[in-house]
Amino acid sequence: MTDNAEIPESNVDVLIIGAGPAGLMAASSLAHLKVPFRIIDRRRTKIFTGQADGLQCRSLEIFDSLGFADRVKKEANHMMEICMWNPDPESGEQGIRRSDRIPDTIVGLSRFQQIVLHQGRIERFFLDNIAKYHQVAGLGPWRGVERGVVPEALEITAKTDGEGEELYPVRVKLRGLSEDEAGVKQVNVGAEGLGGKSVGNIGGDGMFRSNLGDHEKDEEEEEEMMKRARERGGETEVVNCKYVIGCDGARSWTRRALGFELDGEATDFIWGVMDIIPITDFPDIRMRCAIHSANDGSLMVIPRENRLVRLYIQLKEVTPDASGRADRSKITPALIFGAAQRIMHPYKIDYEHCDWWTAYQIGQRIANSFSDDANRVFLAGDAVHTHSPKAGQGMNVSMQDSYNLAWKVGLVAKGICKPSILSTYQSERRRVAQDLIDFDQKFSRLFSGRPAKDVMDAEGVSMEEFKDAFLKGNLFASGLIVNYGPSNLVIKPGDPAEQGDGSEKSRRLEGTPHSITEEEFAKKQALAAGLPVGMRFNSFKVLNQACARPWHFQERLKLDGRFRVVLFAGNILAPGQKERVQKFCDRLNAPGSFLRRATPRGAKIDSVVEVLTIHSAKRTETELLRDFPDILHPFDPHYGWDYSKVFVDDVSYHEGFGDAYKNYGVDKERGCVVAVRPDQYVGWVGDLEDFGELEQYFERFLVLANEQ
Amino acid sequence: MTDNAEIPESNVDVLIIGAGPAGLMAASSLAHLKVPFRIIDRRRTKIFTGQADGLQCRSLEIFDSLGFADRVKKEANHMMEICMWNPDPESGEQGIRRSDRIPDTIVGLSRFQQIVLHQGRIERFFLDNIAKYHQVAGLGPWRGVERGVVPEALEITAKTDGEGEELYPVRVKLRGLSEDEAGVKQVNVGAEGLGGKSVGNIGGDGMFRSNLGDHEKDEEEEEEMMKRARERGGETEVVNCKYVIGCDGARSWTRRALGFELDGEATDFIWGVMDIIPITDFPDIRMRCAIHSANDGSLMVIPRENRLVRLYIQLKEVTPDASGRADRSKITPALIFGAAQRIMHPYKIDYEHCDWWTAYQIGQRIANSFSDDANRVFLAGDAVHTHSPKAGQGMNVSMQDSYNLAWKVGLVAKGICKPSILSTYQSERRRVAQDLIDFDQKFSRLFSGRPAKDVMDAEGVSMEEFKDAFLKGNLFASGLIVNYGPSNLVIKPGDPAEQGDGSEKSRRLEGTPHSITEEEFAKKQALAAGLPVGMRFNSFKVLNQACARPWHFQERLKLDGRFRVVLFAGNILAPGQKERVQKFCDRLNAPGSFLRRATPRGAKIDSVVEVLTIHSAKRTETELLRDFPDILHPFDPHYGWDYSKVFVDDVSYHEGFGDAYKNYGVDKERGCVVAVRPDQYVGWVGDLEDFGELEQYFERFLVLANEQ
Repeated sequence: MTDNAEIPESNVDVLIIGAGPAGLMAASSLAHLKVPFRIIDRRRTKIFTGQADGLQCRSLEIFDSLGFADRVKKEANHMMEICMWNPDPESGEQGIRRSDRIPDTIVGLSRFQQIVLHQGRIERFFLDNIAKYHQVAGLGPWRGVERGVVPEALEITAKTDGEGEELYPVRVKLRGLSEDEAGVKQVNVGAEGLGGKSVGNIGGDGMFRSNLGDHEKDEEEEEEMMKRARERGGETEVVNCKYVIGCDGARSWTRRALGFELDGEATDFIWGVMDIIPITDFPDIRMRCAIHSANDGSLMVIPRENRLVRLYIQLKEVTPDASGRADRSKITPALIFGAAQRIMHPYKIDYEHCDWWTAYQIGQRIANSFSDDANRVFLAGDAVHTHSPKAGQGMNVSMQDSYNLAWKVGLVAKGICKPSILSTYQSERRRVAQDLIDFDQKFSRLFSGRPAKDVMDAEGVSMEEFKDAFLKGNLFASGLIVNYGPSNLVIKPGDPAEQGDGSEKSRRLEGTPHSITEEEFAKKQALAAGLPVGMRFNSFKVLNQACARPWHFQERLKLDGRFRVVLFAGNILAPGQKERVQKFCDRLNAPGSFLRRATPRGAKIDSVVEVLTIHSAKRTETELLRDFPDILHPFDPHYGWDYSKVFVDDVSYHEGFGDAYKNYGVDKERGCVVAVRPDQYVGWVGDLEDFGELEQYFERFLVLANEQ
Repeated sequence: MTDNAEIPESNVDVLIIGAGPAGLMAASSLAHLKVPFRIIDRRRTKIFTGQADGLQCRSLEIFDSLGFADRVKKEANHMMEICMWNPDPESGEQGIRRSDRIPDTIVGLSRFQQIVLHQGRIERFFLDNIAKYHQVAGLGPWRGVERGVVPEALEITAKTDGEGEELYPVRVKLRGLSEDEAGVKQVNVGAEGLGGKSVGNIGGDGMFRSNLGDHEKDEEEEEEMMKRARERGGETEVVNCKYVIGCDGARSWTRRALGFELDGEATDFIWGVMDIIPITDFPDIRMRCAIHSANDGSLMVIPRENRLVRLYIQLKEVTPDASGRADRSKITPALIFGAAQRIMHPYKIDYEHCDWWTAYQIGQRIANSFSDDANRVFLAGDAVHTHSPKAGQGMNVSMQDSYNLAWKVGLVAKGICKPSILSTYQSERRRVAQDLIDFDQKFSRLFSGRPAKDVMDAEGVSMEEFKDAFLKGNLFASGLIVNYGPSNLVIKPGDPAEQGDGSEKSRRLEGTPHSITEEEFAKKQALAAGLPVGMRFNSFKVLNQACARPWHFQERLKLDGRFRVVLFAGNILAPGQKERVQKFCDRLNAPGSFLRRATPRGAKIDSVVEVLTIHSAKRTETELLRDFPDILHPFDPHYGWDYSKVFVDDVSYHEGFGDAYKNYGVDKERGCVVAVRPDQYVGWVGDLEDFGELEQYFERFLVLANEQ
């Protein structure tokens, strides 16, 4: 980077490049953790129509941990059922019929169900949330996303590892664009493409962002634009960062700056997308539908908010040329909609209003590395994995990437965690991305394939196989079966260094590795069979002991950077059990305990690790102050006892019985102890007597008093 | 009123005087109805601490009909249980013990339960809601509450009844106050009153608004202030209104302008109120508690949001003098808190932070009339009824007053309803106010009385009697047993003119009265035993037929000024029943039907009366377009079929089974028809063949096409 004395220079803990869902998730998480950050985006305005919009269960659980799941739920369309439509044998391959109905979200999987809402609204909720928590965090009023700003150069100093390490080792040069330069290209199609429909009724053309866009030309134009901006001598500055998070999409500048490539390839399948208000006699237009026609291709119906319906439509008429690229000029709304009408025959479908449309060529690509060697610059979302949008996974997995990353970066930047935890970002998330791509490959093939005529038709896709894949895909898509591998944050058998890319980088940064045998682990896991180590802490209703209010337990696991120890105290009224709980608490409370050592001088005892209790005795026979050691409801001279930390697994007046012990698979008499990460993933399970192991768990990655 | 040519003059449909909860409820309702209004308040700022804060079930249902119950629920403290504490016979009258626990909200009463949130937040939600719907209504950006503005004169022209009637017959002269003049008096007590606690920890003193305030002096000061404002020649204007709603509190200017008085008297009971963060060993501090001590008086605990707890504390040391007034100067936080400490003995209670405190003398007063003779100026809330705050009723009943009134005023102002419906405001709400006052008298006596020592102690209050009153009081307080008497809006036996005050005004404005015998009515009511005519439409979950999404049916009864016909279509798949439904729909759809005549030319068929359907066949065997007449899911050339109006009483995937037919007491085969007012009250119940009666119901109060 050419230094220029006149360029203003400043420091920031974290710089986020890109303000799509992944970047905003990182920003929101950091605001909740009270970590200073800046977020830039080249676009001048946020998104208003089109784009990704399916929100899976896990994303809603995450939104709830940030405090805005309710806003999303309120505005979204709630999809309840998937209807499978297949060729109707009685109509001689000319029509379709409903062959199956399945619930859209598997029953009992989460307290949320899959919903659909336009990405622009999600971004709005993020912006409101960031502004609120930025203020709450004492970081002052948030200046918002810095729009029309692009990174121009990125440099990581060599001093990132060990002695003499620089505090802000990543230098990024930023340049402000003029309004013209930052404007998003958005071309509306003319009336001719639409069989005479007026232009006013056709909304945004999303082709410019599609993977069918002419990217060589785009890159030339971009280079030209940047050159003009440099010549113009627009505003520049240098930001020195502890960490950089690149969430700048499929054509990520940050990824290119690190010299990484996406590996993978495109298929021959081309699909169109239209958001319309349909006028139709098709009976299931307000259901999610997977339609396979005999000869005209496949179609997916996604009902949306405000009477809108999204159609994903296979375009059999358009095929890639020898270079593997399709001719984008052939793709018009009329072509796409004509295909939809043929697939849905004998039902009629038309529209007066189209909100947005695009087309894409199915393909799957993934980056080999998700961060630089020093774990200072990270990539998330589309910057490291791309795939087809139909499974409603893109926005979800991208947000889950940065949700996984941001608290790790934030806690290391604050000096609460050791840098070694940073390597778990790649080991945990790259595997998820690989799984996603494998799933998408299989699913796209089944969805784009011709339905089998009969069991002898080996080239056709069996509709039973498709339904089976759809069901499995739904489970995968929920985001709830993600199961992180072993690391210092997740105590289970296996070699931590073999997770992710197995590179020297991972090995070096992993810190003191733990080791646990399969047999030992099985014993521990059996103490809480419903809380698999490596998976997210599932939610059931419990009552606050002091006020009898029912809470979904996950509501008490908000993202604020704190780890939690969940003490399943069992039957606290049984004398033997009470003694076990007392012993556990005595160790927690002892002067040299990890809890005391983790707590900064002068801070509250729950500032780094919060202890939450769920017991199984009768609520009305138990009393908070009488029956529970003080450390479970700490006293504050200004605020008195803490009434918010002890819960009971008992029947509520108005909201039934969560039966939490049973659902978590925990013994009602003896209980157990569970360590939970800030992102709600289970890190360790053990017995009340395993205090030493619990302590070791935290010692591996927390910066404790004697190390400060 | 002295006319002054230089004073600016303008028209508005409705002027609301006072921006407390009652006034804001009126404003929000009118915004939802798209009726132009203005709202003024003498105070410069809204409330920040203290004041009423219990929110009963019915209020939450109403908030939901406006769209912000979720915000209230999210921030509020949810009270679950009431604990009764009485003298402990084993401690020789020196202590208290818990004698009972009851649920705070009777189970199954509503989909909401009683919660507690500071009035200032409720006002914030109202303001946000009004701004949003004012814009949606096409009334332009809302200018907000006009603060620091007072009414100075009010005149109703004689031409309000019949020929030559003026469109805006109420002239109100307004004056703007200077910042000084509009400032709220708020005196903080010094440290000396608090036994050495620092001033900084004592929040707002609410005595200035208490009924123990020196009102003669206040009125003198007010007169003086207005005189100064007139002399200063501040900004004035004249507003000509169709209607005026006075929500200006216990000392209502509007009420005085109409020449009305409040009747009733004060008792000898004096109570103090403190909002503190308690430091205590009392086990039930996060429960609602009713505590009777043997000799030191009574106390109520109301746990609140943000660790706050409100204490209502009987002050036995302060008694009214010969004039019936207590000496307010004696009342300090130290005096109030000392009483609390004695009542709660042997438990210890202290605090570091007091948010707000006040004291009041229990009394009940009610206005004889709630509107002027021409039904042009109405009074609501504290302006027409005052009572003690302990039952958490003041804000609730006040908001429910203006919720009852605003849609009537709004629909008459818009020319949709006949003015005769306006007399039902007084007939419906004055009885509720009278019931409230009777309840409060009884409850206050029982709460302030000394507990009986034994069954022979006739002067003491029996704790069984108290518990019984508490349970009944809870039911009353929920707002859900309100049962409006007969009128043209509520078809049940009795003389409409005998409701309310029975004055000539009511009789004259009632319009053509209906008549129904007890026997006829019993037959109709039996068709929907769970939907009593005159009570609010209870809510159970049903599924949208087109998308299987579960809705609490009340969610579909939003306040937008529309009446609803709920068609319980029964088993639509049974041929005989299908025919009955078809016949009913044919009559609905006929050119001269009330539905067609009620719909303004060019407007959608559901703009004045919306038809909603709940059927009881299996969802998956039924299809919206195939099985239901078009009028139940009207077609729009731009938007296609309406998928939002037909529901099914069936099992949901994720939210159980509402069992709506059973809960509404409707026959699953044959169904019935229910007419619902815009405020969710049941107006009429009948059979599918009673179309003529349904038509008559609407003809009595709707302005139909041939009358327009």
